[in-house]
Amino acid sequence: MSAAVNTSGVWAGAGRRIHMQEVGLRDGLQMESAFVPTEDKIALANALSDAGLAKIEVTSFTSPTAIPALKDAEVVMREITRRPGTVYTALVPNVRGAERAIESRADELNLVMSASATHNIANLRMTQEHSFAALAQVVATAQAARVAVNVSLSCVFGCPMEGEVAPEAVFGWVQRFVDLGVGGVTLCDTTGMAYPRQVAAITAAARARWPGVEFTLHFHNTRGMGLANVLAAIDAGADRFDASLGGLGGCPYAPGASGNVCSEEIVHALACMGYETGVDLAALVAAAQRLPALIGHDIPSQIAKAGPRLALHPVPADFGAIKERALAREKELAGGTRTT
Amino acid sequence: MSAAVNTSGVWAGAGRRIHMQEVGLRDGLQMESAFVPTEDKIALANALSDAGLAKIEVTSFTSPTAIPALKDAEVVMREITRRPGTVYTALVPNVRGAERAIESRADELNLVMSASATHNIANLRMTQEHSFAALAQVVATAQAARVAVNVSLSCVFGCPMEGEVAPEAVFGWVQRFVDLGVGGVTLCDTTGMAYPRQVAAITAAARARWPGVEFTLHFHNTRGMGLANVLAAIDAGADRFDASLGGLGGCPYAPGASGNVCSEEIVHALACMGYETGVDLAALVAAAQRLPALIGHDIPSQIAKAGPRLALHPVPADFGAIKERALAREKELAGGTRTT
Repeated sequence: MSAAVNTSGVWAGAGRRIHMQEVGLRDGLQMESAFVPTEDKIALANALSDAGLAKIEVTSFTSPTAIPALKDAEVVMREITRRPGTVYTALVPNVRGAERAIESRADELNLVMSASATHNIANLRMTQEHSFAALAQVVATAQAARVAVNVSLSCVFGCPMEGEVAPEAVFGWVQRFVDLGVGGVTLCDTTGMAYPRQVAAITAAARARWPGVEFTLHFHNTRGMGLANVLAAIDAGADRFDASLGGLGGCPYAPGASGNVCSEEIVHALACMGYETGVDLAALVAAAQRLPALIGHDIPSQIAKAGPRLALHPVPADFGAIKERALAREKELAGGTRTT
Repeated sequence: MSAAVNTSGVWAGAGRRIHMQEVGLRDGLQMESAFVPTEDKIALANALSDAGLAKIEVTSFTSPTAIPALKDAEVVMREITRRPGTVYTALVPNVRGAERAIESRADELNLVMSASATHNIANLRMTQEHSFAALAQVVATAQAARVAVNVSLSCVFGCPMEGEVAPEAVFGWVQRFVDLGVGGVTLCDTTGMAYPRQVAAITAAARARWPGVEFTLHFHNTRGMGLANVLAAIDAGADRFDASLGGLGGCPYAPGASGNVCSEEIVHALACMGYETGVDLAALVAAAQRLPALIGHDIPSQIAKAGPRLALHPVPADFGAIKERALAREKELAGGTRTT
């Protein structure tokens, strides 16, 4: 067959640059029941900076009573060590949060609303129109302060309550935010419903329609399709991905299933394939291995358990003796003895 | 950019037939410390037949002292209900095993040796030449009985002790088995070292060189690349995959990491993308959900936990009240009240 020549170019990165954006400190830690001490959060953020992540979502400027795990947002955002070239972003839900984030020197504000009407009401307790109006005020606040804005649209690839979400509905919201002057949009697969064919189609369509917008893809591995979705998006031209250290984060609709795609798994796979993420995998894995002690439980990361593919294992302790016997038996066999 | 038109065809199955081959009863159960009662194994095999798997590796005709979990090989192989069109295969290590499997009416004998010299000695306690000589006798036995033979080559994509395994070494063994008249070869990623670029290259090269051989790809999800590797192989023309119900099976070199790719995860993903596996996903998931009670622990399967992507969830119990308040606040907003 023609298989040998028809293979897609996506499997070979050939040095293509992929920007890895870390969301574990926010999307991950906000789900944890343990409060990670402020100095440990700062140390983790610094380790992630050193590892070479392109963007780090440092925290969330929400109400401390709503998300107590991130009640130290100001201190963390102010005290991290900033690596030149790395973008330090923070989630903000409203103008008050934006003001706090800007005062704390966030490089970018990350705004969230849902592409699903039902999910927006259930999760944010606002209608989509209300969310948009509120976020428009936040955009204005950021623009006045000359701080960049990214909008994360939830449920782009499906809603756990509504089912399919029409791409036209998603693109309608993208257009309205682009009209406000927003430069970055994240297409979020909030509950792991995305699949590669859909991802390739939506990514290609979005990039074709708004070539000037910086699109990020945000996947969860809830149904085991995380890396495949990343590759489908890359094949459609995407070059920015959210991922979570250790695979932290979760999906409230699938207890026990994986959460966000795991940063070190994606970095490892892309490195194997020849993509350039700029991330030091060993440093990233070392950072992930700090997590269990901080959050009090094991992490989903497969790479933290298995190591990179060429992390070799010693032969068995008695390998010399086994080999000697195997060679002796091979000799017998050559001598004509039946051995089986 | 040209992204919209350049997307690879692999993301859209367009009804292409993919043969799913179940290895959980053998590759999975042999790793379990619990002995699954014979009647439960038979019931599982029958459920897998009913679910529409193309091939089922039913058991292993090894020494009962070596693998006590499968000491009931004869009874299981004889008493399963056979679905027309399904291939019932069994692992056999030697001529004695082949005779037992043939007497028990196996449709196919599955033979194993390693593409890595070190792994072959460590795992099979024989040199590769010795293994080949022994398996050549098994092939002759099968041919005399007119029973099909498949050879599973371990460590095709890397050896946990040696590191990289040269494709030329792999292809040398393939050629020697093809010369014996073997019709099927499985390229096994025994410890989850395969990555998509490598998979696409090796699959394409193997298919181009031996167009008459039925190649199967066998992946482990040890480093989270299982589904991506399946898709890379499909893109290179492969259409047969081993997978394990519930994601059973493991990798002795990566305790805690995932084992074989999970049958229901692969079937689910391929169905989303429009491939035709002939497998009834709901029946497969129902079979997987029997496993925890039989083996005494949770299974890695994400689909068993999360359900298929369109298995919807009810809105929160107080959704009506939340929505009413959200609509009221939207109205206030329209009236000019600042809400954030």
